[in-house]
Amino acid sequence: MALVGTLPRNEDGIASTVGILKQRFGDRLQTGAAIRAQHAHTTTWLPNQPADAVVFASSTEEVSEIVRICADHRTPLIPFGTGTSLEGHLNAPGGGISLDLSHMQKVLEVHAEDLDCRIQPGVTRKQLNTHLRDQGLFFPIDPGADASLGGMAATRASGTNAVRYGTMRDNVIALEAVMADGRAVRTARRARKTSAGYDLTRLLIGSEGTLGIITELTLKLQGIPEAMSSARCSFPSVEAACNAVILSVQMGLPMARIELLDGLQVKACNAYSKLSLPEGPLLLLEFHGSKASVAEQAQTFGEIADDTGGFDFAWSGRAEDRTALWQARHDAYWASIALRPGCKALSTDICVPISQLAACVTAAQMQLEKLDLMAPIVGHAGDGNFHCLLLLDEHNPDDLIKAEHFTHWLADLAHAHDGTCTGEHGIGQGKASYLRAEIGESTDVMAAIKTALDPDNILNPGKILLS
Amino acid sequence: MALVGTLPRNEDGIASTVGILKQRFGDRLQTGAAIRAQHAHTTTWLPNQPADAVVFASSTEEVSEIVRICADHRTPLIPFGTGTSLEGHLNAPGGGISLDLSHMQKVLEVHAEDLDCRIQPGVTRKQLNTHLRDQGLFFPIDPGADASLGGMAATRASGTNAVRYGTMRDNVIALEAVMADGRAVRTARRARKTSAGYDLTRLLIGSEGTLGIITELTLKLQGIPEAMSSARCSFPSVEAACNAVILSVQMGLPMARIELLDGLQVKACNAYSKLSLPEGPLLLLEFHGSKASVAEQAQTFGEIADDTGGFDFAWSGRAEDRTALWQARHDAYWASIALRPGCKALSTDICVPISQLAACVTAAQMQLEKLDLMAPIVGHAGDGNFHCLLLLDEHNPDDLIKAEHFTHWLADLAHAHDGTCTGEHGIGQGKASYLRAEIGESTDVMAAIKTALDPDNILNPGKILLS
Repeated sequence: MALVGTLPRNEDGIASTVGILKQRFGDRLQTGAAIRAQHAHTTTWLPNQPADAVVFASSTEEVSEIVRICADHRTPLIPFGTGTSLEGHLNAPGGGISLDLSHMQKVLEVHAEDLDCRIQPGVTRKQLNTHLRDQGLFFPIDPGADASLGGMAATRASGTNAVRYGTMRDNVIALEAVMADGRAVRTARRARKTSAGYDLTRLLIGSEGTLGIITELTLKLQGIPEAMSSARCSFPSVEAACNAVILSVQMGLPMARIELLDGLQVKACNAYSKLSLPEGPLLLLEFHGSKASVAEQAQTFGEIADDTGGFDFAWSGRAEDRTALWQARHDAYWASIALRPGCKALSTDICVPISQLAACVTAAQMQLEKLDLMAPIVGHAGDGNFHCLLLLDEHNPDDLIKAEHFTHWLADLAHAHDGTCTGEHGIGQGKASYLRAEIGESTDVMAAIKTALDPDNILNPGKILLS
Repeated sequence: MALVGTLPRNEDGIASTVGILKQRFGDRLQTGAAIRAQHAHTTTWLPNQPADAVVFASSTEEVSEIVRICADHRTPLIPFGTGTSLEGHLNAPGGGISLDLSHMQKVLEVHAEDLDCRIQPGVTRKQLNTHLRDQGLFFPIDPGADASLGGMAATRASGTNAVRYGTMRDNVIALEAVMADGRAVRTARRARKTSAGYDLTRLLIGSEGTLGIITELTLKLQGIPEAMSSARCSFPSVEAACNAVILSVQMGLPMARIELLDGLQVKACNAYSKLSLPEGPLLLLEFHGSKASVAEQAQTFGEIADDTGGFDFAWSGRAEDRTALWQARHDAYWASIALRPGCKALSTDICVPISQLAACVTAAQMQLEKLDLMAPIVGHAGDGNFHCLLLLDEHNPDDLIKAEHFTHWLADLAHAHDGTCTGEHGIGQGKASYLRAEIGESTDVMAAIKTALDPDNILNPGKILLS
């Protein structure tokens, strides 16, 4: 099992905090082992480090009150949305309180004319999209899991359609957050753009609960496109597939999604979803726009694919065909797991300039083979972001050692290609040791900001920055 | 003349700093009155507050050295790009050194495959676009002036095509900056997206030189579109024009630009550019894409305009026709000035949710009439951002009092409509007194960050935050 840091426990402070919160919140303060373990849930290889108690807040005022109580006793506070983060963000290395925001799940306002909405942080992306559908609107960011939007903002999440719609960084207009002293602040008004002072909205997005606790989000929305088309194309090599991606991006083809599956992933999908795709690199695309434009865009991609060695190109604008074309992607995770039944899956997350994508994917495949690790690869190719899904036997120490070796090696690979160790999962505990190698003394600037805004280090301590 | 704050002068420190810099930089340290006044140039109504000397740096190492010398003597340092900022960003209210970065104007790298480039901060947007043209690439942000890209980042600039391409916030991948202690840090690698720690890139963008001095930028680029089309349409009212904007945004029409001119502005353009446009609200649009799509988009807008009361709709995909269609916008500034020869122009900059745009423009027109001020209005309508160009006799105290009254009133109007007092010009000195009304205690969070990163307040003091 990998090592994670622990922090000194402030036993007296924690005991007092739990007592006060219990008195104030009654049954909304829970200390059972199961719920504490579940709230430190990390869908990764990191050991579970549960908080001492879980408290459920239902309003900004309650979050302020809880933060003040924790601040008074210097008790760590770990915000919790849906528990789908991947790098130990929810662990409590020094104990403390898990602050569950999932009951704060109201959609407060929708401004259809302005394409924006104001929501509480526990609203999940599927809940929001269900709410919006009748108005012809949607929120585009799709990280896979049905995560809470507060959590998605806190980890700067993205997913398959970032190539078109950006990441959480680009889709939040303003935040309300409770700071380490219990004050609730609002970072901006509702205008689409502003030059009014420091960009606190962006500072909080991706801060992983270490600078403030997000209690409200004002989000940009999109109109549901009039039409969509999907396309699929196989390639003789990862390099050929990446060349097609590069040309498409260069000519400004407005792809909503462009996903790369490597040969092993396609093989897994063929077996799992009863498909018969050529078992080599595959690109899957989606286009959003008017009926005419999505047809034109799919066809333009077909021409690009043709020029770069693609084969078995297919596209369609019909909903049922589009689902079939994307079947492999929809089932990719479960198809991978089925390659090694009973395995535990660990997802890596490097992101590099797209000119470096083919070299990095190919190098990763070779390294996986050398280490005898099984790991299908899917990539958000338009962003240069790809995931190796390591399929591990968690009871086999060798597997875990090899996995750790590989993730270190992969971070170094990303850095050697001017990329990042994390495109969308965040640093948490799992990648804290890579941060300085990636951005050098910027790490010290981050630490100075952390100290200024949370001098007692009570907000999600032990994440992002090594203490 | 409006009041601006002054700061206590650290006479001994400044004298020592000037002496040391003179010895080190020779003729690259200038103390003449004219150059000092020019470097405090503020294209606004604020009084000129020159620095004690101007120093020209030619490398990051020199910037570090200059910052260290200033830090040693607690001497204020005001970064300077091209001097086109609008809110007194370049003034030296406590004296100090103006650090001219305009000699740092190398395009260091262009990665055509990745659509990015790395440049020094003194490169101007026109210089960059000239450099890129042969490669079929361009940098989209166009604030009007041929500003330096370091300055554009520092003020979070945008302009007419933010509706499609975003602002400086969205188009910078990474920055190198020299912090207040003289250390140069790099905020990120070259990947398109990252979740690696706090978003220092976005924190520096819009920080107006108060947190660090930008010494290098890695920028996102765009492929020059295959085709463009332009369109023009008159409307019976500002409200009708804004309804057309709202519908276009809602249906996801990918406009590259959508500019609103009010009746007075159109009248000024008719006179200046010998046009015969209907003298009421006018929308001008531009579309980027494939030949087929830009034709489809212009026509779609024509249908929307028809439904919302638009008339005299015209569009074209031919370059010479496009220039003619946009003539009014190209000449808008000079046409306005010609309404009142010899006047001084002061540009306001509020930005509101687009559902509030018509109400705010109409209220502004009424208030201008009430105050007997002449001010044509142009707006980046897709963003809800508009500028009243106040045409003032700078020797008439009444005019200046009325102008100041109006700018205060307008900031209040923006706040009452959930907007910002500045969409793209920044806070500087001119709007520092509006910030707390806009974002409340977030101002304190900004101050805490400023203190943490620049404890002696040497970087562009007296800007953004009231001292």
